[in-house]
Amino acid sequence: MSDPSSRLNIALAMPQDVARRVFPARLLERLEPGLNLLSTEPLQEFDSPRSRSLLARADILITGWGCPQLDETVLNAAPNLRYILHAAGSAKHHVGQACWDRGLQVSTAAEANAVPVAEYTVAMILLANKNVLQLARIVHTLHSAVEPEDYYPQLGNFRKRVGIIGASKIGRHVIRLLRSYDLEVVVADPYLDPEEAIELGAELVGLDELVASSDVVSLHAPSLPSTRHMIDARQIARLRPGATFINTARGELVDQDALLRRIEQGDLYAVLDVTTPWSLPTDSGFYVNPNVLLTPHVAGSLGSELERMAASTVEEALRLSRGEALRFPLRAADLAFTA
Amino acid sequence: MSDPSSRLNIALAMPQDVARRVFPARLLERLEPGLNLLSTEPLQEFDSPRSRSLLARADILITGWGCPQLDETVLNAAPNLRYILHAAGSAKHHVGQACWDRGLQVSTAAEANAVPVAEYTVAMILLANKNVLQLARIVHTLHSAVEPEDYYPQLGNFRKRVGIIGASKIGRHVIRLLRSYDLEVVVADPYLDPEEAIELGAELVGLDELVASSDVVSLHAPSLPSTRHMIDARQIARLRPGATFINTARGELVDQDALLRRIEQGDLYAVLDVTTPWSLPTDSGFYVNPNVLLTPHVAGSLGSELERMAASTVEEALRLSRGEALRFPLRAADLAFTA
Ligand SMILES: NC(=O)c1ccc[n+]([C@@H]2O[C@H](COP(=O)([O-])OP(=O)(O)OC[C@H]3O[C@@H](n4cnc5c(N)ncnc54)[C@H](O)[C@@H]3O)[C@@H](O)[C@H]2O)c1
Ligand SMILES: NC(=O)c1ccc[n+]([C@@H]2O[C@H](COP(=O)([O-])OP(=O)(O)OC[C@H]3O[C@@H](n4cnc5c(N)ncnc54)[C@H](O)[C@@H]3O)[C@@H](O)[C@H]2O)c1
Repeated sequence: MSDPSSRLNIALAMPQDVARRVFPARLLERLEPGLNLLSTEPLQEFDSPRSRSLLARADILITGWGCPQLDETVLNAAPNLRYILHAAGSAKHHVGQACWDRGLQVSTAAEANAVPVAEYTVAMILLANKNVLQLARIVHTLHSAVEPEDYYPQLGNFRKRVGIIGASKIGRHVIRLLRSYDLEVVVADPYLDPEEAIELGAELVGLDELVASSDVVSLHAPSLPSTRHMIDARQIARLRPGATFINTARGELVDQDALLRRIEQGDLYAVLDVTTPWSLPTDSGFYVNPNVLLTPHVAGSLGSELERMAASTVEEALRLSRGEALRFPLRAADLAFTA
Repeated sequence: MSDPSSRLNIALAMPQDVARRVFPARLLERLEPGLNLLSTEPLQEFDSPRSRSLLARADILITGWGCPQLDETVLNAAPNLRYILHAAGSAKHHVGQACWDRGLQVSTAAEANAVPVAEYTVAMILLANKNVLQLARIVHTLHSAVEPEDYYPQLGNFRKRVGIIGASKIGRHVIRLLRSYDLEVVVADPYLDPEEAIELGAELVGLDELVASSDVVSLHAPSLPSTRHMIDARQIARLRPGATFINTARGELVDQDALLRRIEQGDLYAVLDVTTPWSLPTDSGFYVNPNVLLTPHVAGSLGSELERMAASTVEEALRLSRGEALRFPLRAADLAFTA
């Protein structure tokens, strides 16, 4: 199609096993003929002669989980590099100040990665409002059918209040998906204005009010120094009796000890896809409390969902090959308030 | 508003506790001033002098779960009766041949009752494709974090195939809700044509193909003599290894023994909101198999969701008061293929 000599050169940088999982051959084939894929084998480090020779020619680097840091030495070996397209959520681990100083353009697949997390959240909200998993546990324990309303007279997914903390990429997608249900959605986010919230399909409220008034509270803020323990003992005490607290964000946002203490009082349910530490000690109370559902960091992109992120990254590369702007640019200034 | 003497007379017929749960005072107030509510106290039987006197005047009967049979004797006592508005799903238990012979117009809240069942189903589909509940069980059993893909390399909610058996009210709402996800939806229903399926957002396929090719199979057909054991040992054998089978319809549609045997082979997951018998014997294998999630008939309208059905019924009554046609009419001919 395009004149081969004018095509942008593109290389992959990520561990071999990540590349194999995330980029099936049929996806890489879509890069050509618009772009010149220097090699289908990814760069796994930036020091070998092969890596140096590919870096020397690359205009675009597609990165994945586990890509080594793009520091000044690496960038000096890549004089033509203008774009970093990350085929995963956060680029904070390998894209640092050196990239910003050099004016590189960066894009991530965080928007595609938001999709499965939001889907997991919606499923958990729908089950939480009907205490479905608690009721299943009762049936499997008693070995008998039960009357749901004998246990949970207030259950139901009609006009319940769902509180979304953070109109982040994930939080916004949760709110969008919740439009299909008869739920009242409130959102707390210092960066959101009331009109934008309404457009999204939610009402903007303060964090205290959200926590105190919601039947389900779901956390979607980024982990930053300023958000550490934003859900502290005070907020945890505010949660309604019988409420469900969902955390798919990061354990660091929540005072884990205070959360467990409240759960152990018996009037709070928790669905935790993330905890601090990520792998809890064997004797953690979270493992044994019947009101806790621990899932092993499964909300994000896994299995077939990796292809959604990779496809989004390939799409970004194709935009560049057509001279178009990136669709999901990440800017240095964003880092102060994004995941 | 309207001339009181020209207003249609309306009465409630259902057990007292059903009326209390389903019809909060604020809903009944909406009936007036367009209609003349003869009494806020429901008829619980049709024999007492009070019941006879209300029946004698009623143009419209709002019925609920547990309403006694409307047989010929009852109808003879209700010379003005023209409409039966049922504030629940199926009207088969109390609306019989006598009602059809008399040309009564019947409406049900089956459409409103379909909503929570579809919501439960969507939540279970999203969790099933990621094996979330199995992974949670592993974490709670091992007391340690695990790598999801070590257990389920194929997991994910991207491009998975979901098979919906029955474009019933519930089946259709499931398909509508699934439009928000990147899933491939197929539907099997002898009463549906391919174009209608596409409009709904699904591809029409035969039952055998649906069962053999779907990652999740969800049953939404009505229980009829012709659908008894439509999921028989042959169909159950066809389900893909690792698939999830969801039944929120009726246990009678499925050969329960064949289902349990296949589950006990270890390569099928089941989410069962209904079984035959409804309350399984204490020693049933369904209670103890880790690949089964039994929920106590919780998918339908319960708790706050009862108000959605009641509001739909009140809306029907108000349509009649304005001289409009029923929105959700049930016809005698429908009974041959509806729940
Ligand atoms: N469980 C998983 O597998 C998984 C996968 C991806 C992301 N995550 C986590 O989910 C969370 C959301 O990710 P994302 O990509 O949607 O985030 P994001 O980068 O889009 O979040 C940024 C936004 O969060 C909002 N925000 C910032 N500070 C806030 C505060 N103090 N209170 C409320 N809102 C605030 C702002 O609207 C900001 O624009 C992050 O914690 C991320 O680490 C988890
Ligand atoms: N779990 C619960 O709490 C709950 C609540 C309500 C309904 N239900 C059950 O859910 C099922 C669906 O209810 P509904 O109100 O949506 O049903 P419905 O009355 O709308 O179903 C009728 C439709 O089913 C389809 N159908 C008929 N025979 C079929 C067949 N052999 N194969 C495939 N499709 C066929 C046709 O499209 C027909 O129009 C029923 O079994 C009902 O009893 C369960």
